[in-house]
Amino acid sequence: MAARAAGRGLLGIETVLVAIGWLLVVLALSMLLPMIADLFQDHPDWTGFLASSGISLFSGVALLLACRRDSGPLDLRAAFLLTTLTWVAVAAFGSLPFQLGAVDLSLTDAVFETVSGLTTTGSTVMTGLDTAPRGILLWRSILQLLGGIGIVVVALVMLPFLRVGGMQLFRTESSDRSEKLLPHTGAMVSRLLTVYLGLALLCILALRACGLSLFDAVNHAFTAVSTGGFGTRDASIGAFANPAAEWVLVLFMFLGALPFMRYVAVLQGRPDMFWNDSQIRLLLGICAVAALALALWLVLARDRSLLDALRAAAFTVVSVITTTGFATEDYQLWGAPPIAVVLALTIMGGCTGSTAGGIKMFRFEILWISATLYVQSLILPSRVTRPHYAGRPVDSEIIVAVLSFAFFFMGTWGLFSVVLGALGLDLITAITAAATALANVGPGLGGIIGPAGNFLPLSDPVKWVLTLAMLMGRLEFFTILVLLHPAFWRR
Amino acid sequence: MAARAAGRGLLGIETVLVAIGWLLVVLALSMLLPMIADLFQDHPDWTGFLASSGISLFSGVALLLACRRDSGPLDLRAAFLLTTLTWVAVAAFGSLPFQLGAVDLSLTDAVFETVSGLTTTGSTVMTGLDTAPRGILLWRSILQLLGGIGIVVVALVMLPFLRVGGMQLFRTESSDRSEKLLPHTGAMVSRLLTVYLGLALLCILALRACGLSLFDAVNHAFTAVSTGGFGTRDASIGAFANPAAEWVLVLFMFLGALPFMRYVAVLQGRPDMFWNDSQIRLLLGICAVAALALALWLVLARDRSLLDALRAAAFTVVSVITTTGFATEDYQLWGAPPIAVVLALTIMGGCTGSTAGGIKMFRFEILWISATLYVQSLILPSRVTRPHYAGRPVDSEIIVAVLSFAFFFMGTWGLFSVVLGALGLDLITAITAAATALANVGPGLGGIIGPAGNFLPLSDPVKWVLTLAMLMGRLEFFTILVLLHPAFWRR
Repeated sequence: MAARAAGRGLLGIETVLVAIGWLLVVLALSMLLPMIADLFQDHPDWTGFLASSGISLFSGVALLLACRRDSGPLDLRAAFLLTTLTWVAVAAFGSLPFQLGAVDLSLTDAVFETVSGLTTTGSTVMTGLDTAPRGILLWRSILQLLGGIGIVVVALVMLPFLRVGGMQLFRTESSDRSEKLLPHTGAMVSRLLTVYLGLALLCILALRACGLSLFDAVNHAFTAVSTGGFGTRDASIGAFANPAAEWVLVLFMFLGALPFMRYVAVLQGRPDMFWNDSQIRLLLGICAVAALALALWLVLARDRSLLDALRAAAFTVVSVITTTGFATEDYQLWGAPPIAVVLALTIMGGCTGSTAGGIKMFRFEILWISATLYVQSLILPSRVTRPHYAGRPVDSEIIVAVLSFAFFFMGTWGLFSVVLGALGLDLITAITAAATALANVGPGLGGIIGPAGNFLPLSDPVKWVLTLAMLMGRLEFFTILVLLHPAFWRR
Repeated sequence: MAARAAGRGLLGIETVLVAIGWLLVVLALSMLLPMIADLFQDHPDWTGFLASSGISLFSGVALLLACRRDSGPLDLRAAFLLTTLTWVAVAAFGSLPFQLGAVDLSLTDAVFETVSGLTTTGSTVMTGLDTAPRGILLWRSILQLLGGIGIVVVALVMLPFLRVGGMQLFRTESSDRSEKLLPHTGAMVSRLLTVYLGLALLCILALRACGLSLFDAVNHAFTAVSTGGFGTRDASIGAFANPAAEWVLVLFMFLGALPFMRYVAVLQGRPDMFWNDSQIRLLLGICAVAALALALWLVLARDRSLLDALRAAAFTVVSVITTTGFATEDYQLWGAPPIAVVLALTIMGGCTGSTAGGIKMFRFEILWISATLYVQSLILPSRVTRPHYAGRPVDSEIIVAVLSFAFFFMGTWGLFSVVLGALGLDLITAITAAATALANVGPGLGGIIGPAGNFLPLSDPVKWVLTLAMLMGRLEFFTILVLLHPAFWRR
């Protein structure tokens, strides 16, 4: 079988299947936590988790047994397949508890909810969260926790290797043209996991200190550090009416949107690496300016008290730009100017190498560099300037990659908006549903999918389109687009 | 004075002033036509045109006398200045009849209407067109006629020289790196003018044959071949209820959006050049597909007869994609899917080297080429492919230029939408006002600026922002943006 695969030129397809097998085993074990939660609450939904866990475990072990001895190094195409297929497979099996359990969602809704969880988007089709069984609430949070660390690993290990959207800037190998993915990543992944779970634990403690129940603290800690946005109440964070908890969540959403390798550096005694990161400074600057502007608006135009306005503005700005999507109130009632700002923040995103989605800070930095270079080249055609970013020269390969990403983001946004409009959504819902899905934020604008709304009323075709958009945004477009190119399948 | 200018390194600033002087003389002479129209109608508004003409003539002649002997070849920076300043100067003097005449618009409204005319956008702040004096209606049409030929000359002569947005693909000089603008353009401009006025004349005859009055035929011919969109009635073309005239306008709007050099080639006995142009085929294909889809929707979902649906769909699609902006009915009543399609068509634009605005067909072709190249480079990093377009290799300079243009278009659209939202417009009005201004189309969506609406109710700051957006879109962004770069002013 290895020989046949090599003959077809896909070196490492068995490794892909082995990776999926391991992930399914992890998924099956994760399903035992919500099962235990349901058992504690004496809720019959635990059987759904047991069945889902069994199916996932069986499938995972079967894959491991079938392919284990054949696994080996990955070639480039297998690495592309690995990145896409693992997300699709985990989403498929992760949706089982929604279908086999008490909530009994349709296939469409179950897949939508699962993909929204794994991609840390946070758009939901579930209502009645306040009275839902604890198991399924915990499962939604666990999906976001898993998806969060998943995307950090993809961003740090796979995307730089795949050179997607300018991510080669973040390569750690010395060789820029290596055709094989080096497997020295186990130590890095375990360090990242330590940081990630450490942040979640700190968030749990802080939320408990603010008076949330252990269950609410755990769930919201999981979905804050993963910048996911699922909650345990239909009214999201607003339901708790707990200002201290809101400030805690502002902090941890922000921390979740910073490059995770910088935490590792701090733990290794290099705190300077943290403040030297231009992405972190840019994100902090945008958050501060936007939050102050919105707070000022709320004080002047909406007669809110300063502290209340600051909290509402900071929460909304950080929740949206970090692509979390928690809501404390319906900011659509604030008026036209704040709405326009929120829509702009929706597609910006956090830092690369974090759990946040969107275009991301480093790309804005590169876009700014390439714009000034381009305008300068128009004025002084013969002058050659080559700036650096993250220790690497910003050459035309990087510029084309980042410009392509930005253009594809905008173009895909437009295309999905038109498709969603053609499926019958009004223009505001179509445009903001596409944006919130592609940037993995959560809520959109308008009466249906706004911060006070829910994705349930949308039609099945719309939900599938949004499911695809969430996956494309999460995997930075090209990881999926290359699979559509004939050259990928030819050799 | 020449020596001092050369010392400051702006070679040819006098040439810029001479060009502006000549354009003001042309403008002053053009103002005599609406003056004559008012005199024929015995309307007192003729004095406004006489005064405006006198002021423009005096200023133009003064510039010519002051700088004529100093004019010489242009350097790159003077060419940038020339392109921007001529439009600003002509807009300033062209707005005089709106301020000095009977309609007596405010400065803001007069400049908005003039820039909307010259950039062939067609958004209007004037109401009561049906009873307005003939002179001012004719002046609006003449502004679009002048702006149309102006942008064709800019696109064929200046932009390729300035290498803005990938326009170097359309250079006609053999030397790609010439630092001086060659003045062998007089013959080309006179051939373009013949084609342009010939098209306008044909359109006048065809509209007369459909039963329009000579005055209406002249005005709409001027604003159709310039893809401008001003009309003589508040209800635009819908006021005539003349199906034959609508089909005539569909044809001439489309012809106005094709590369004008191809007409010159046809006149020189090379009709094959016309059909071989991939821009023309792409525009025709998009128009056909979009019109058929909308017609099908109107038949199936709105119970319109086939012929009526085809005409309404073809008119709307061609009016929007050619960036004309005529309206026969309010297509916002057609439902969500057509609205989404119309918004997508709004930013596409026609062919380069025509009077149409928007992103333009050749850029979509280059974007497609660069997207497939990029995706292919991800799969096969070592493969080097270099496709050609318009007889030139599509190298990374072209790709960066076109991607930069597309990104700047999208980014500026987003930025202007946020600014307009911050100035108080609702989201739909803000987004579509920015789109229609940047792409020089005319109508937007929503209750205020939709195809049945008017830009008059907007606030003064909004109108100035849109005026800037129309100019930036018309001059392809970078022509204006370079003026903001410190390197432009340093030497």
